[in-house]
Amino acid sequence: MSTGIWLIGARGSVAVTTIVGAAALRAGLTEPYGCVTELPDLRSPALPALADLVFGGHDITTTPLSKKAEALVAAGVLPARITAAVEADLAAVQDELRPVPTAGCQAEAARLIAADIDDFRRRHGLDRVVVINVASTEPAPPPHPAHADLAALEAALALPGDVLPPSALNAYAAFTAGCPFVDFTPSTGARLPALRDLAVRAGVPYAGRDGKTGETLVKSVLAPMFAMRHLRVRTWSGTNLLGGGDGANLADPAANAAKAASKQRVLAETLGYQPQGTTLIEFVDDLGDFKTAWDLITFTGFLGTAMRMEFTWHGCDSALAAPLVLDLARLTAAAHAAGRTGALSELAFFFKDPLGDDDPPTGPQDSPEGQQDPRDRVPQAISHALAEQWAVLARFVRGLADG
Amino acid sequence: MSTGIWLIGARGSVAVTTIVGAAALRAGLTEPYGCVTELPDLRSPALPALADLVFGGHDITTTPLSKKAEALVAAGVLPARITAAVEADLAAVQDELRPVPTAGCQAEAARLIAADIDDFRRRHGLDRVVVINVASTEPAPPPHPAHADLAALEAALALPGDVLPPSALNAYAAFTAGCPFVDFTPSTGARLPALRDLAVRAGVPYAGRDGKTGETLVKSVLAPMFAMRHLRVRTWSGTNLLGGGDGANLADPAANAAKAASKQRVLAETLGYQPQGTTLIEFVDDLGDFKTAWDLITFTGFLGTAMRMEFTWHGCDSALAAPLVLDLARLTAAAHAAGRTGALSELAFFFKDPLGDDDPPTGPQDSPEGQQDPRDRVPQAISHALAEQWAVLARFVRGLADG
Amino acid sequence: MSTGIWLIGARGSVAVTTIVGAAALRAGLTEPYGCVTELPDLRSPALPALADLVFGGHDITTTPLSKKAEALVAAGVLPARITAAVEADLAAVQDELRPVPTAGCQAEAARLIAADIDDFRRRHGLDRVVVINVASTEPAPPPHPAHADLAALEAALALPGDVLPPSALNAYAAFTAGCPFVDFTPSTGARLPALRDLAVRAGVPYAGRDGKTGETLVKSVLAPMFAMRHLRVRTWSGTNLLGGGDGANLADPAANAAKAASKQRVLAETLGYQPQGTTLIEFVDDLGDFKTAWDLITFTGFLGTAMRMEFTWHGCDSALAAPLVLDLARLTAAAHAAGRTGALSELAFFFKDPLGDDDPPTGPQDSPEGQQDPRDRVPQAISHALAEQWAVLARFVRGLADG
Amino acid sequence: MSTGIWLIGARGSVAVTTIVGAAALRAGLTEPYGCVTELPDLRSPALPALADLVFGGHDITTTPLSKKAEALVAAGVLPARITAAVEADLAAVQDELRPVPTAGCQAEAARLIAADIDDFRRRHGLDRVVVINVASTEPAPPPHPAHADLAALEAALALPGDVLPPSALNAYAAFTAGCPFVDFTPSTGARLPALRDLAVRAGVPYAGRDGKTGETLVKSVLAPMFAMRHLRVRTWSGTNLLGGGDGANLADPAANAAKAASKQRVLAETLGYQPQGTTLIEFVDDLGDFKTAWDLITFTGFLGTAMRMEFTWHGCDSALAAPLVLDLARLTAAAHAAGRTGALSELAFFFKDPLGDDDPPTGPQDSPEGQQDPRDRVPQAISHALAEQWAVLARFVRGLADG
Ligand SMILES: NC(=O)c1ccc[n+]([C@@H]2O[C@H](COP(=O)([O-])OP(=O)(O)OC[C@H]3O[C@@H](n4cnc5c(N)ncnc54)[C@H](O)[C@@H]3O)[C@@H](O)[C@H]2O)c1
Ligand SMILES: NC(=O)c1ccc[n+]([C@@H]2O[C@H](COP(=O)([O-])OP(=O)(O)OC[C@H]3O[C@@H](n4cnc5c(N)ncnc54)[C@H](O)[C@@H]3O)[C@@H](O)[C@H]2O)c1
Ligand SMILES: NC(=O)c1ccc[n+]([C@@H]2O[C@H](COP(=O)([O-])OP(=O)(O)OC[C@H]3O[C@@H](n4cnc5c(N)ncnc54)[C@H](O)[C@@H]3O)[C@@H](O)[C@H]2O)c1
Ligand SMILES: NC(=O)c1ccc[n+]([C@@H]2O[C@H](COP(=O)([O-])OP(=O)(O)OC[C@H]3O[C@@H](n4cnc5c(N)ncnc54)[C@H](O)[C@@H]3O)[C@@H](O)[C@H]2O)c1
Ligand code: NA
Ligand code: NA
Repeated sequence: MSTGIWLIGARGSVAVTTIVGAAALRAGLTEPYGCVTELPDLRSPALPALADLVFGGHDITTTPLSKKAEALVAAGVLPARITAAVEADLAAVQDELRPVPTAGCQAEAARLIAADIDDFRRRHGLDRVVVINVASTEPAPPPHPAHADLAALEAALALPGDVLPPSALNAYAAFTAGCPFVDFTPSTGARLPALRDLAVRAGVPYAGRDGKTGETLVKSVLAPMFAMRHLRVRTWSGTNLLGGGDGANLADPAANAAKAASKQRVLAETLGYQPQGTTLIEFVDDLGDFKTAWDLITFTGFLGTAMRMEFTWHGCDSALAAPLVLDLARLTAAAHAAGRTGALSELAFFFKDPLGDDDPPTGPQDSPEGQQDPRDRVPQAISHALAEQWAVLARFVRGLADG
Repeated sequence: MSTGIWLIGARGSVAVTTIVGAAALRAGLTEPYGCVTELPDLRSPALPALADLVFGGHDITTTPLSKKAEALVAAGVLPARITAAVEADLAAVQDELRPVPTAGCQAEAARLIAADIDDFRRRHGLDRVVVINVASTEPAPPPHPAHADLAALEAALALPGDVLPPSALNAYAAFTAGCPFVDFTPSTGARLPALRDLAVRAGVPYAGRDGKTGETLVKSVLAPMFAMRHLRVRTWSGTNLLGGGDGANLADPAANAAKAASKQRVLAETLGYQPQGTTLIEFVDDLGDFKTAWDLITFTGFLGTAMRMEFTWHGCDSALAAPLVLDLARLTAAAHAAGRTGALSELAFFFKDPLGDDDPPTGPQDSPEGQQDPRDRVPQAISHALAEQWAVLARFVRGLADG
Repeated sequence: MSTGIWLIGARGSVAVTTIVGAAALRAGLTEPYGCVTELPDLRSPALPALADLVFGGHDITTTPLSKKAEALVAAGVLPARITAAVEADLAAVQDELRPVPTAGCQAEAARLIAADIDDFRRRHGLDRVVVINVASTEPAPPPHPAHADLAALEAALALPGDVLPPSALNAYAAFTAGCPFVDFTPSTGARLPALRDLAVRAGVPYAGRDGKTGETLVKSVLAPMFAMRHLRVRTWSGTNLLGGGDGANLADPAANAAKAASKQRVLAETLGYQPQGTTLIEFVDDLGDFKTAWDLITFTGFLGTAMRMEFTWHGCDSALAAPLVLDLARLTAAAHAAGRTGALSELAFFFKDPLGDDDPPTGPQDSPEGQQDPRDRVPQAISHALAEQWAVLARFVRGLADG
Repeated sequence: MSTGIWLIGARGSVAVTTIVGAAALRAGLTEPYGCVTELPDLRSPALPALADLVFGGHDITTTPLSKKAEALVAAGVLPARITAAVEADLAAVQDELRPVPTAGCQAEAARLIAADIDDFRRRHGLDRVVVINVASTEPAPPPHPAHADLAALEAALALPGDVLPPSALNAYAAFTAGCPFVDFTPSTGARLPALRDLAVRAGVPYAGRDGKTGETLVKSVLAPMFAMRHLRVRTWSGTNLLGGGDGANLADPAANAAKAASKQRVLAETLGYQPQGTTLIEFVDDLGDFKTAWDLITFTGFLGTAMRMEFTWHGCDSALAAPLVLDLARLTAAAHAAGRTGALSELAFFFKDPLGDDDPPTGPQDSPEGQQDPRDRVPQAISHALAEQWAVLARFVRGLADG
């Protein structure tokens, strides 16, 4: 099953780490650490093989991939030897990158984006292309009535002016090209009623949003621990220090706000109440891609006893994100092959702010409850507890193979 | 369902916190934080009510409960106002405590222990008594051939000299008195083939061992997180600083070794390999019951990138342990009422070193696999992942209600 | 040497902890931990004895001291038994508190403040009264030409409208009453040229500003360590989580900004450059007076090797501040007795943002350089390194005794 | 002033980092971070220039320097580009290394060691050679009567059998060759009365012991902070996780004990009492030269309030040690040139367990107290507070220039 991955933001840190890593895996130069679809429980013949993946994409900059890779080597994100060994693969992908098309109206821009993707698909004879947004986080767009209605949206796009933020325009273009779309960022992406309708009409699935790679990942296991033990969390306050391109972008308060909100959601949903405390994000250029997050949790136990926990997380963001991009591409491609449309809520495992609760998925794999003890069922609202998300994911993968 | 709780080590910190807390809950003076059987998902009419619990026990010291409670107030473990308010309850329990019987041979000692328990049961007209070991951790006993054979054990107990360590003698006595037994400590308890046979013969269930209250609790959610994300843990090194009676006892290297081994087990079982690093335990008198644990975890991700995480846990050990003692008493009593015998592997949620893997439980609730997708089944070996243990526990409680 | 301490903000946490602590020390109920003037190296007959201190003050609220003390007991800041034992002392101080006077112009308000202080001094036959500002932090005031000139200021104060923020008005009133003034807060206080001139004219000393009690204290020893070892600090980023009255007030961005700036000053001054990173302050009601600060420091060593350090500080702010208030009262009283006027730069040990660099002190103790190796001299700019501040303080105290 | 540095353990991590770093500094390829003699306050014409240093040494292994350097590059300790650039320098030093001589008695072994050093000095026409021990830490040797008496020692060395551990034999050989000796390790080195006498007779200075590079460095500023603020430290408990050659060696309990004792000494000496807690050292191969230390400090303040602080230190041990080896070589060479003999207590700044308290130094620079206020004098016992050690060091360097 030859599968294209079309990256929006193809010259960024996450994208380049993904491209280098996929080449290194194909060449047997590295272990698939971080790739969950390479775990025994999730490996499946229904997924495209790593060797079946072909990369292309859009970016607004023109930095050569080799230059970005060099910078990532210098920053300690990419290993020097392996990166040197896949130079030719990088050059090949470089030839598949296109500038972001510009046009007089967004309808025309979307048409040009879709044409680039389609061209990529045809030239490589791909079974399908998954479009994945790994571009810089956008501020939330101003609301617009056309966001809620597909016909109104199509009319508005034909006029001059911007109705959709870039992430949503890319989702629109992907759907019109018949491609699944994954949003790895906290941007708007497919998260508009009009776009959901378009995906269903186009018969394609989508997933998102905001890859869960660090502090929120830890939250998604610690918060359930407190809940399962009936320990009352009073305060959960986090500080995230990060550099890199993403950090610089998040220094912009509007982008920052989108991210911080997505990071706290897991607490209220898992605990059933919102503890005190917020998530602070600070840009510290020096840290580069190596983020440091510190969280303080205070909680009350038996007889009102006050206790506390702290953790520090020193993660390399791109190294955590890139293997998930590969996982998401493979899973979404397989879902598409299996006829799934709409939001893939079963991929909540991968996201800080999973899509799908208010948007029940449709398709053949989607009603396994018949054979199951109803009390074991996944709750209507998408669970934010990692272990439950894992169980849902494992069942989803088995369903693909059986399908 | 009036239920007795017979505490071995009834004048210790965990015991007194349990007794004060149960009285405070009955009087509506505090929230049931820390009690998992008070969570909506686990509440069940099959469990004895908190108001149905009656306390008694053995201890080798004669410190009055009120004096121990005072010390726990001064140490910040028990709240002053609430402890003062339940003074009369404490005095009533004090009247139910007995010195540890002594005798010329262990058979006779066991008979006297059982007689004390039986007397307690009769005087209060209790439906049943659950014996719970919260005494000081013992060193592992020297092996003895009689440990493996019930008939040989009975013969050996009749001779002078000690065949069983105190915890196992208490399990023996409990079983002969027809009582379930729970070991909250890392001591031997019921964990001998001869005693397992005795429990089955006596038709009683048992559970253990070593309450999971701090660092190991955190490990049981973080280790699965790394496993689910395919992140390779290279080092997991823990330091536990603790004071209090338990800490003083663990300063003894033999007791310490038992505890440290029980604390690392979760890693190998959850990850599938043993990372580098050990668990250091240091006695620091000044910390009292407020333990501080610090763990360093280093791990490898995509493309071999090295990352790390640290956490510090500041927990009050007795406040974390006491509500679990109440939970275990209620759950074990209900299992007994439901006809369960042998090791209750479904209570693994509560323990660092859960009993039951090599010892399949028997009884009516025990074969629900028929109605279930076999791929969802709990693995043969008892899972050390907290979320899976939770799912098993929840199913167990529902089974009790249905039974 | 009977000495009055007139507290601005006399019903706040720092004030009440100071009052309770002084009474407890006088009654021999507690050790003088936290009081640096009780260390062997700083004890001096030139200082008023603890038993010679008498308290009074102003506050805008009317909460009884006993009620505030009760709240501090409940929050774990004050010990229950000791606080109960000094109830009578608290009641006596309560009688010495006055509402903040109001008037048609600030000149009249200052006159009424001074009159309250003078009345207090006369009724108790005190040798002198030290006025100490421990009121809520104010926003920085808008600049005003009268701040720079004493005559202009006196003219402006006579008109309706506010020329001075409350802290500065209190400094003005203190000086006109012939009293030394200490600013324990980051507010303006005496830090205006016109007020400096007034202090010199009135022949009184003053000191400030912003008591150094937690994260900045640690910075003032760690930053010199990096400097002395020629390790290049790249990032120093701090997060301060705090509740309590002060925390609530700092949730106001304007007050917060004043505080954060004062907290970073030590780095640039000690290291000679400003590393990346800022100080984040977040209000977390639940933490009360127990602040948690976390700092991340990254640094470069030999051959460019990147290293890092983190610390967490869990301090009780009022317990750290109150003994310093006693120290400052005693030291400033002694300086006044010795004829010192103007800014007491030798008290930099106590402050985040020490007064005096641009304002050379005058008076008899002030030119000891004659007898000294000039290379050992304290640098012109006030050192922010704690050890140097300590040496200066010790010399100052010895000078008082010799004087 | 051409100066030789003869390294005992010349093929180890610290040695190779020192050699590579010195070459890189000479070639202008790196900043002198970590070198305190390159700070403005300590730079002095009395010290040999970095360009004047020539390296040689002994080691028991024969690993080529280039191979060890490669391993240090792979481990992230040495930068790849710089290490490649100084390949020729490394090869030149390689030619100056000699195997550790063996002989029938220790007198003969010492003669051969001294002959190697003397040959090195003559071939390079060096003004002097400083011998520096950076070999693996030894266990403490069994006591021997000849350790206390030089004549007895000389007699005993002539017999077969080992009277001295290797570090002390090297000190002996250095002194007989007329060379100063520095012990960067916690081994015995010159710390025997017979060797002290020999150093004075030979007219050479010596310094030690145990380079202060990580956790102890931090302790030497934090402990004085608590002391200066009159905060009572109750517990100070440290955990050191380290890999590398030194870590493997410290896994040996005897070597470990020597190190741990040297690490706690600073607390008792600075605070005036020994708080609870010990220093745990654990070997974690995976961490390599990047040590992680975690310390918990609990302390009591005003009114008995309990507070705490934690820190984590992630340092690269060799990168911290190597520049100090250069500093010590330069300072000891200059002291020798200035006619100093015996223990250089003024170099306490560099050591965990500084030599010299019980051993007053002699020589021309040694009585500057005449011109000084006696109250400012350094205490008789060598201070363990870093800031005081710094002041002493700065005065020492100025004395060298003036001398
Ligand atoms: N790395 C992680 O752990 C992680 C986790 C969750 C989410 N994310 C998200 O992934 C995204 C990428 O992160 P990164 O670290 O690679 O950032 P980056 O700054 O290195 O790369 C972003 C790339 O997007 C390009 N870009 C910006 N706007 C574009 C547009 N309109 N069309 C096409 N390309 C555009 C930029 O030129 C840049 O090359 C961010 O939105 C980030 O929030 C990352
Ligand atoms: N608190 C926790 O978080 C936790 C978690 C897991 C396990 N545990 C275990 O619980 C046990 C109790 O801990 P604690 O903090 O209450 O200790 P503790 O020292 O306060 O109390 C132990 C009590 O047991 C009594 N005792 C000792 N030997 C006895 C015997 N042979 N028969 C009867 N009584 C005996 C002692 O006199 C004492 O009163 C320990 O074994 C501990 O390891 C505690
Ligand atoms: N506690 C510390 O560690 C520390 C350190 C440095 C500085 N400070 C400063 O000390 C001050 C007091 O802190 P706190 O924790 O006691 O705060 P708090 O809120 O408990 O007390 C402040 C008191 O000041 C009173 N007040 C407000 N405005 C006033 C005015 N104009 N005149 C008279 N009284 C007034 C308030 O009514 C209140 O009673 C704050 O400015 C704080 O920033 C505290
Ligand atoms: N790196 C630091 O931060 C630091 C701080 C304080 C002290 N130290 C001490 O410095 C020493 C060196 O540390 P390292 O990390 O370089 O260790 P290492 O193991 O890398 O190197 C030690 C070298 O000494 C050699 N050696 C052993 N015995 C010898 C002998 N008898 N004669 C000559 N050579 C011998 C070994 O072969 C090895 O090459 C250790 O004793 C360590 O405790 C290091
Ligand atoms: Na920490
Ligand atoms: Na930490």
